[in-house]
Amino acid sequence: MTEGRAVEIKVLRYILEANDRAAAENRDNLTGAGVTAFNLIGGPGSGKTSLLERVVPQLRSGLRVGVLEGDIATSRDAERIATLDVPVVQLLTGGGCHLEATFIAKGLSELGLGRLDLVFIENVGNIACPAEFDLGEAAKVGVLSVAEGHDKPGKYPLLFHEISALVLGKIDLLPHVDFDMAAFERDFRGLNREAPLFPLSCRTGEGVPAFRGVARTSA
Amino acid sequence: MTEGRAVEIKVLRYILEANDRAAAENRDNLTGAGVTAFNLIGGPGSGKTSLLERVVPQLRSGLRVGVLEGDIATSRDAERIATLDVPVVQLLTGGGCHLEATFIAKGLSELGLGRLDLVFIENVGNIACPAEFDLGEAAKVGVLSVAEGHDKPGKYPLLFHEISALVLGKIDLLPHVDFDMAAFERDFRGLNREAPLFPLSCRTGEGVPAFRGVARTSA
Repeated sequence: MTEGRAVEIKVLRYILEANDRAAAENRDNLTGAGVTAFNLIGGPGSGKTSLLERVVPQLRSGLRVGVLEGDIATSRDAERIATLDVPVVQLLTGGGCHLEATFIAKGLSELGLGRLDLVFIENVGNIACPAEFDLGEAAKVGVLSVAEGHDKPGKYPLLFHEISALVLGKIDLLPHVDFDMAAFERDFRGLNREAPLFPLSCRTGEGVPAFRGVARTSA
Repeated sequence: MTEGRAVEIKVLRYILEANDRAAAENRDNLTGAGVTAFNLIGGPGSGKTSLLERVVPQLRSGLRVGVLEGDIATSRDAERIATLDVPVVQLLTGGGCHLEATFIAKGLSELGLGRLDLVFIENVGNIACPAEFDLGEAAKVGVLSVAEGHDKPGKYPLLFHEISALVLGKIDLLPHVDFDMAAFERDFRGLNREAPLFPLSCRTGEGVPAFRGVARTSA
């Protein structure tokens, strides 16, 4: 197995290097077109699509917003976003557990960079693999639901280290789950001292304006 | 990129074939020793460790139970299981998003198959990648929390197709989340007609005995 492992590591490095080149190209294209892209990374059902449903309608007044929806299968999320009347492209990985930069390049080209100010990329529901792949985004935004538990930062350190902001969603569930906020903040701040934290609920709307405001001013 | 993609696919096939060989060996060893292994697969915070905390103490009376805890980082879950006074080995992938069969072989050898009847393997919190890797288990058991939403089967079809049983956890949250049970069952049964469904709550204990009973009789 040692030889197999060496081949794997070599290929992984090759894949990541190829991805980095494509990501740099995306970043150049986005910057050149004056478009800000956020890469939303969170587990399955953490609330990424619901967050977009909450912030996109208001951001649309004043900003030209587009969405790339990453999923393994189904176009359900793109259909939800399409009802918000913004351009959306569904990126289906067909089994793949994360989005890669070359796929994003195709999605951006379909959206048409010249027609946009702000792009949300919703990654595949997974907090392990997507954190390893630069897509050329301006910032990675983590999305964690309080239902997932306070112990997640330490268990998935790469993501919580890499993100520029963290949405802590479903806070309306706090009375019903065992989520230790102090332990969570200690854990998160041990990995990331700077990323702002946005506790919010897409169900009640609490905390949503703060995140929306930062998204608007960053674009 | 076409060439790169071809290399990736070739290496992935190589990895999966090597894994299948190791899994077949695990299966032979487990069967030979009369040990039943369940591979628990669910997203981050879906409730895999809480489920073990609920079922292992009772299963211990009459069965010799061991646990393999897969995580990217930290030994928090193994520490939780160790308080249940059963043998546990923490398998740290160091970034890897799933468990592979060779790693399970090492874990089983550390646990000592001759001293066990039933092994729970808690996979890395991820519902994409772990479904692709046979570990030699008797059955894959899916763990989904109602907080993750009813639309997950169609979006992660491989897992929901591969599992032999599905735990639908955190049902105490049903009054507080938008989970459409009929849509969920339709979606799940479209992928998997036979796997029994265990709706339960580790918080209240509701539904736990049914799952525990099946785990006991399967061992």
